[in-house]
Amino acid sequence: MSNPGNDRLEQLLSRFASGDRMALARLITLVENRSANVATVMERLYSGVGNTHVIGITGPPGAGKSTLIDRLIKKLRARKQQVAVLAIDPSSPFSGGAVLGDRVRMGDHYGDPGVYIRSLSTRGSHGGLSRAARQIVTLLEAFKFDVIIVETAGVGQTELDIMDLAHTTVVVTVPEGGDGIQIMKAGLNEIADIFVVNKADRDGADRVKAELELNVHLRADAGWRPPVLLTEAANDRGLDALVAQLDRHWEYLRAHKDPQAERQHRVHEFIEILTGQLEERARNAMDDQRVHALVESVCAGKLNPYSAVRMLLDDASAMGALLSKTVVDS
Amino acid sequence: MSNPGNDRLEQLLSRFASGDRMALARLITLVENRSANVATVMERLYSGVGNTHVIGITGPPGAGKSTLIDRLIKKLRARKQQVAVLAIDPSSPFSGGAVLGDRVRMGDHYGDPGVYIRSLSTRGSHGGLSRAARQIVTLLEAFKFDVIIVETAGVGQTELDIMDLAHTTVVVTVPEGGDGIQIMKAGLNEIADIFVVNKADRDGADRVKAELELNVHLRADAGWRPPVLLTEAANDRGLDALVAQLDRHWEYLRAHKDPQAERQHRVHEFIEILTGQLEERARNAMDDQRVHALVESVCAGKLNPYSAVRMLLDDASAMGALLSKTVVDS
Repeated sequence: MSNPGNDRLEQLLSRFASGDRMALARLITLVENRSANVATVMERLYSGVGNTHVIGITGPPGAGKSTLIDRLIKKLRARKQQVAVLAIDPSSPFSGGAVLGDRVRMGDHYGDPGVYIRSLSTRGSHGGLSRAARQIVTLLEAFKFDVIIVETAGVGQTELDIMDLAHTTVVVTVPEGGDGIQIMKAGLNEIADIFVVNKADRDGADRVKAELELNVHLRADAGWRPPVLLTEAANDRGLDALVAQLDRHWEYLRAHKDPQAERQHRVHEFIEILTGQLEERARNAMDDQRVHALVESVCAGKLNPYSAVRMLLDDASAMGALLSKTVVDS
Repeated sequence: MSNPGNDRLEQLLSRFASGDRMALARLITLVENRSANVATVMERLYSGVGNTHVIGITGPPGAGKSTLIDRLIKKLRARKQQVAVLAIDPSSPFSGGAVLGDRVRMGDHYGDPGVYIRSLSTRGSHGGLSRAARQIVTLLEAFKFDVIIVETAGVGQTELDIMDLAHTTVVVTVPEGGDGIQIMKAGLNEIADIFVVNKADRDGADRVKAELELNVHLRADAGWRPPVLLTEAANDRGLDALVAQLDRHWEYLRAHKDPQAERQHRVHEFIEILTGQLEERARNAMDDQRVHALVESVCAGKLNPYSAVRMLLDDASAMGALLSKTVVDS
């Protein structure tokens, strides 16, 4: 059976497959809008572990992440790599900084067909942010970018979760105001594969570098040891070393596959997808008559919400029917 | 039917009801550990809209939030109010700052039976953080505290979600380094009911105050207009004005009940509880035979995870049975 909605989706998917960027953009918008088609799109485009290097870049606002990414893109483009940037940092010029006009700085790449830049709005997403980020990264992988850069401000829990998506996490800081200590307090040191001390021409760069190196030393993990790099992105200094370390970490990961960790990652991903879809379906079930009646009782103060949820969940057949109902896009 | 586990839980609940703090602490630990008993506990203790004023305090690390809270507690204690603090800020002395030894500063209140301080670990919570915060606030409300202070660092999405829990949100900043602008970039201005410029003896306090006041003016909402207060928490200055504004906002909320907003809040809460429990049940369903087989196929690369989830969800009876299964605490 065919219907117009399905036909449109099929057309979109086939344009996506032929490398049409407008189709990519449309599919990302479906994810942002939590369209009921997202599950189908993901199932069709999921390609599993691919050849795309996903790089997370995080650090406090003002660390110069955008300039660093700008310069990094130039280096990757010089090697003819296709690069996508997903910005989830509300203070990033990619996503929110337009307020201050610094989006201009990134304008350099807007005409380059080898670079795709997209920001993900963080407002009102209520917990769906890391799920949306995961789905968009899946889309970008399926579009066969060589490198995907995910940028967050990295000071909150959701932002730490998002960094989980990256193969390589770069934590950027500056030589100021106990920034090294702030990073450790926020738990960023635990997720870093590479540290970058940017604006390294300022006082204190060597001290912050030493602090971070001491921290790496104290963690004393076997295996990968996060290097601490000094950069001056604004002066285009230190970028080659960063690219070299990114390559080195990517090769390291491919040479040291850990089946246990891989398995854990797969299970984690499965749970995330399952719970995400349950959540979407539950949200859509609010229109169901039985659910509606329960919600009414809660709103009228006749039932507490935990009791209402228990009554719903205890009714196996009602729940099964409700959640297995395929939702239709409005 | 009675079983030893139920008996223990009943004892805990009755000790809680008689005001036993150890029981409160135990129940909070159940929430932190995502115990299967949490749903039962919440259903029993949920008391709906009560007389507790929930105050959210957020702002960038280094804004002096802990000192401010310390002084605020003193003021509230002077009026004989029972105060609970829930700290979710990884850089807070309550939760993470022990690294730097500033937990000592809060030690003043540890002997006071009118003050209860608890920190919520943010590591590895993977999206469950705002749910846990909501449940713990419910417990503290049921314990009949007069005031609950929830502290976050407020720079990420999860932290913004947590501030949703508060009746009154206080955004704290300092007169430095474009902090006013950082706050606006992070979207904090949109959630503030009261702004505090702390460390107001430093240069630039009046400028930041003017920036924030201009922002309030531009938003031009009818109704509550967030005041901008200058404080020097370390010197105990400006705290009386803060307490007065907190009272004023609390009275404002009680005088201007908005049935539409209240309803929306109830529906939102219902969805959050429903999806939270679905997630917990789905997590526990990983041991189910059918789920296990699907996960195996995914791990072996025979099935993509989106297909596996669809196969599971399409099977209404399997899903219903799975999700309505009552989980047993291990």
